[in-house]
Amino acid sequence: MKVFLKISFLGTRYCGYQVQGNAVTVQQMLNEAAERVFGFPCDIVGCSRTDSGVHAEEFCVCVTKRKEAGLVTTVPVSKIPVAMNCFLPDDISVLEASLVPEEFHARYDVKYKEYVYRIWNGRVKNPFLADRMMFLPMPIGDGDVERANEAAGAFVGRKDFRAFMASGSKITDTVRTVYHASLSREGDVITFRVAADGFLYNMVRIMAGTLVEVLQGRRTPDEVATAIASCDRRRAGSTAPACGLYLHRVSYETYQEKGGEKQ
Amino acid sequence: MKVFLKISFLGTRYCGYQVQGNAVTVQQMLNEAAERVFGFPCDIVGCSRTDSGVHAEEFCVCVTKRKEAGLVTTVPVSKIPVAMNCFLPDDISVLEASLVPEEFHARYDVKYKEYVYRIWNGRVKNPFLADRMMFLPMPIGDGDVERANEAAGAFVGRKDFRAFMASGSKITDTVRTVYHASLSREGDVITFRVAADGFLYNMVRIMAGTLVEVLQGRRTPDEVATAIASCDRRRAGSTAPACGLYLHRVSYETYQEKGGEKQ
Repeated sequence: MKVFLKISFLGTRYCGYQVQGNAVTVQQMLNEAAERVFGFPCDIVGCSRTDSGVHAEEFCVCVTKRKEAGLVTTVPVSKIPVAMNCFLPDDISVLEASLVPEEFHARYDVKYKEYVYRIWNGRVKNPFLADRMMFLPMPIGDGDVERANEAAGAFVGRKDFRAFMASGSKITDTVRTVYHASLSREGDVITFRVAADGFLYNMVRIMAGTLVEVLQGRRTPDEVATAIASCDRRRAGSTAPACGLYLHRVSYETYQEKGGEKQ
Repeated sequence: MKVFLKISFLGTRYCGYQVQGNAVTVQQMLNEAAERVFGFPCDIVGCSRTDSGVHAEEFCVCVTKRKEAGLVTTVPVSKIPVAMNCFLPDDISVLEASLVPEEFHARYDVKYKEYVYRIWNGRVKNPFLADRMMFLPMPIGDGDVERANEAAGAFVGRKDFRAFMASGSKITDTVRTVYHASLSREGDVITFRVAADGFLYNMVRIMAGTLVEVLQGRRTPDEVATAIASCDRRRAGSTAPACGLYLHRVSYETYQEKGGEKQ
């Protein structure tokens, strides 16, 4: 058996999830805590990579003994979250732990993920939301929000999202299925939600940047559909800042199994 | 005329509001920004002191030219918030600016203040709320919340709050009028609200620490009333951590003028 962990983290201090060179990453913090809790070096496989400064309300990892397929834990599974949290910094938390079969894979078995992109649309900056939302101080009308929500609808379906991938990315299969995409406003916070079977590099941030241009009246909903169809990165909008992006849900059941839109 | 500013700040990085020795404070940041915006050194008088790590959703200050009674601004008043925010760090924001008469005093003219104390009562720590709420992981029943709210009611009225003042404080007039005190829970967040014409040193944090003991079943509501009447610091609970405390409202109208309970 492997140990499966649901975690959440504030990404501000980290150079993303994945271990890399000298930079401080979430995976490195998990590695150090797992070695303390289990008593031996571990391998940790995450459900996804995340960029520097991106947050996760839900992120999943599998823990095995280093270079082995599984892990025999002497710590009762129910105690693993609190034990791990004793050795993790305040901005990373283990929410749940369970045992999964050795053939389970934290990344390859993901059926869909949901991201949320948050925008602070107050008149002035909000000191409680620095590094937690994009700041868009210009007045946005209800009609602009409706148009941006309509534009978000253009993302839904099985499509080639090459235009919404960071230039320089070497992925060749750029077709993904988007199950849900919507934009709404509550008070001074504008939220873009998108669920898909997979995401290209910077895909959500380019979607968000494009919808911001719709909110600003600089782009029509039709132009978003055209940008998708063009498969040309230059036709999509700019990449919205990392600080507004949250991995919100990771599902190992399909979107249909989870109840689709009703969730 | 003086310049009156409504600001808000995340207190985590600051040794409180008031300038002191070598420590970084909110007032010092405001001083530096004001000098940049107005073009000369200024004096800044705040509505209150705050402890290290305490936050403010609303905090008020008056700005005058250094060693003078008022300030003639060449910056239009409506532009002052955005101008100040250009020179302030991300965790301090000017929300509103206006002009007030020279006889107005940011501290002495306060009629009442409202504080909010927030507690994260989830099973595990929340990485998004580190340094923003006290963490209380034990299960709390609805009955415990009701009892703590009943206990909070004992704070209301004109009373001697000496038992709820940090020992060592040299204030001699320890009578204050509490207009409102309540405790409630929404999801995993427990919130204590208290409004009064003034607060003694650490008063809200000692009130919160005492109510936490009621939540934990370690103290009855009656014992809270007894602790107040004792005027003995040792009879009240411990001082809850600074990170959960927010100055929520500063009013220059009386509680009755503001509509009291209805607000």
